[in-house]
Amino acid sequence: MSWTRSFLDRYLRIPSVSAQGTGIRDSVTLLLGVFTELGFDARVVETTGNPVVCAEKKTPGARKTLLVYNHYDVQPPDPLDEWRSPPWEPVERDGRLYARGVADNKANLAVRLGAVRDLGDRLPVNLKFTVEGEEEVGSPSLAGFVAAQRDWLQADGCLWETGGRDEHGTPDVICGVKGILHAEATCRGTARDLHSSVGVAVPSAAWTLVHALAGLRAPDGTVTLPGFYERVRRPGGADLAALDAMPYDEEKRREAYGIAGFLGGLCGPDLKEALVFRPTININGLTSGYQGKGSKTVLPKSASVKFDVRLVPDMDPAEIREKLRAYFRPFGIELSDAHGYPPARTAVDDPLVRAAAEAAREAWGRDPFLLPLMPASGPMYLYRALMPCVSFGTGDPASAIHAPNESVALSALDAGRAHVAAFLTRVAAL
Amino acid sequence: MSWTRSFLDRYLRIPSVSAQGTGIRDSVTLLLGVFTELGFDARVVETTGNPVVCAEKKTPGARKTLLVYNHYDVQPPDPLDEWRSPPWEPVERDGRLYARGVADNKANLAVRLGAVRDLGDRLPVNLKFTVEGEEEVGSPSLAGFVAAQRDWLQADGCLWETGGRDEHGTPDVICGVKGILHAEATCRGTARDLHSSVGVAVPSAAWTLVHALAGLRAPDGTVTLPGFYERVRRPGGADLAALDAMPYDEEKRREAYGIAGFLGGLCGPDLKEALVFRPTININGLTSGYQGKGSKTVLPKSASVKFDVRLVPDMDPAEIREKLRAYFRPFGIELSDAHGYPPARTAVDDPLVRAAAEAAREAWGRDPFLLPLMPASGPMYLYRALMPCVSFGTGDPASAIHAPNESVALSALDAGRAHVAAFLTRVAAL
Repeated sequence: MSWTRSFLDRYLRIPSVSAQGTGIRDSVTLLLGVFTELGFDARVVETTGNPVVCAEKKTPGARKTLLVYNHYDVQPPDPLDEWRSPPWEPVERDGRLYARGVADNKANLAVRLGAVRDLGDRLPVNLKFTVEGEEEVGSPSLAGFVAAQRDWLQADGCLWETGGRDEHGTPDVICGVKGILHAEATCRGTARDLHSSVGVAVPSAAWTLVHALAGLRAPDGTVTLPGFYERVRRPGGADLAALDAMPYDEEKRREAYGIAGFLGGLCGPDLKEALVFRPTININGLTSGYQGKGSKTVLPKSASVKFDVRLVPDMDPAEIREKLRAYFRPFGIELSDAHGYPPARTAVDDPLVRAAAEAAREAWGRDPFLLPLMPASGPMYLYRALMPCVSFGTGDPASAIHAPNESVALSALDAGRAHVAAFLTRVAAL
Repeated sequence: MSWTRSFLDRYLRIPSVSAQGTGIRDSVTLLLGVFTELGFDARVVETTGNPVVCAEKKTPGARKTLLVYNHYDVQPPDPLDEWRSPPWEPVERDGRLYARGVADNKANLAVRLGAVRDLGDRLPVNLKFTVEGEEEVGSPSLAGFVAAQRDWLQADGCLWETGGRDEHGTPDVICGVKGILHAEATCRGTARDLHSSVGVAVPSAAWTLVHALAGLRAPDGTVTLPGFYERVRRPGGADLAALDAMPYDEEKRREAYGIAGFLGGLCGPDLKEALVFRPTININGLTSGYQGKGSKTVLPKSASVKFDVRLVPDMDPAEIREKLRAYFRPFGIELSDAHGYPPARTAVDDPLVRAAAEAAREAWGRDPFLLPLMPASGPMYLYRALMPCVSFGTGDPASAIHAPNESVALSALDAGRAHVAAFLTRVAAL
């Protein structure tokens, strides 16, 4: 077993679920150990939430410094009964490695560390790693961390946490992320659960929530929250060119998702533009009343929805939160647990992006495509305020990120390591 | 402890939840024992589901026979954490008896049996009891039972399971029940849970369910399912007179329910007419995606709703089920577990109803009100096809039927017994 694979094996066994508060200290201990083993000065920076592991390695004579961002926390593993092997036991099957968090983003940290180990004395840059523990719950403590560590964080560029290849093996180089607002909205109706026979005359929390939600997004996917699109910036010329060059195999994706067609009949350039440049509101969970076996004739006293809002430049999460609050108020629905961060992006023709793209070509043996803004989110804005950011990694469309049976291709561990090493060489020459 | 209270104590400790299949055989054993103790010929009639306990007591010289309908099954007790005392441990507090199922409808059977015991040799009628075990899940086996036992079930009238008093202690006499259709609708979207970042372009099961539901019922409570009201019969003159005489303390009910106003601004005669004569669709439960602590950025692969439809004469549950199926089909939503029964009623001026009303006046010391159709449901149509039916019992507005901390007033056990005894005397004279 390679060093990278062996490190991953230990890392993946830790159930580091920030939403549930498990595996945090074990992750920190493991990371401190591995950074120290690789010759880094490693330390734990406490925050108002989970700690951030910081590690620095100075290279004599190096002119450039690269900052790396990863997170040790992962998504909850449920629904558990859909896993073919236990989520916290890494298992190899048919050339892939399965475990919760392997694609998002434990394997990416593993190949980065593996590349550092491969390079040994030939490491061409100074390195700073930051591995946080709250990315999957919206990174509530990261702004405080960055403010406190602002001086230490200075670098020439940042390598972000994620990335991968499409169905045909073409690697991506990611130049930005959408922003996100996580929230929960709760409708409280009657003082207690009532017999549903009175439902013909008594307001229902569940029906009220349904009507409020139906007014938020049209069946074709258009968000109907007043003012939602106000600050959306249209993509520029270089963005549209990148979008045009971006491969997207609609048939393969439809097959993988198990859908007959995309939302509102989206296809072609319009579909790609939606994925990259359009915001939306997603329902993550609905909860009300009786969910057990059989039936129960109850009028539930409350109903709630967990949702996320995906934001594009120049949308502001605080502004959207207030629009949502104002929208829900007349329904008697309360918005809670609303937190998130704005989108962030680096220009597709930035030298750091070019370095990542050239390194991708060398490591994967083919031209990558540039993703101006990736559909997923992350707190990149905090790092982008200090330096340009770029992102690449080991995932692929079969990775089932945030879903049961998450995995990466074992072959991506080798190529991924080569990609990182080639990138470091180019960063040194910027 | 009185005989009635002591029987109830044993009866209430059985967790006879038909939705979860618990406590069925224990209930049957207890009932067989108590009927035998009271001099009935008791037997168990097996069905395709839970058995029905049948018991018969012949009175020498009696010209009239009364059939009694009760059910030994109760609603599930959740949410458990809202019970002030455990649901399966009967507890007396402040003049009330608390336990799951005490109001719906174990105390009603208890006072009926208590009255039989009180009357002893003075019992003026022949009695037949039927106690079924699937009322709370829509009585799926009762039609088969009634068809098979049709000859044995012949009687001059039927005493149905339920009833009670309003906030001011005025007893009700119930002449009919609404029908019901229990159903579950499930929207299956993507092949598996996806990362919600693709939600801007991928159809969402949860959003689809929300839109489908929003089109079923307007915010003011009007059902918008095409053809829903087609067969609704307007109340006649005697019904409207009964409705007019029916007390309904809106302020007290609003307080008890914890609501600022009724659905769609209903009040006065219109509110009473809605409760008694209008159908509706109630959401009993909503389920989709992540329901744990914190947030999870997932696009859930499915979303489902449990609901009940309350039916009034002459609506037909099978017809409504087909309308719902046709409505949901274009959304890709599947209707499952749809079962129920039609409404049923006896005229408010039927002699059996008059006998129950006169007995109420004698037992409770005040004029009862007649409820042409009660807001709750029951499989009365099967018995109504054979004979007139009437219903009264021991509940009150604080009984919290189907909710945590279900209870009856201890004083209702005595008056309830007297009501039954007085009724039997009047039935003998019909």
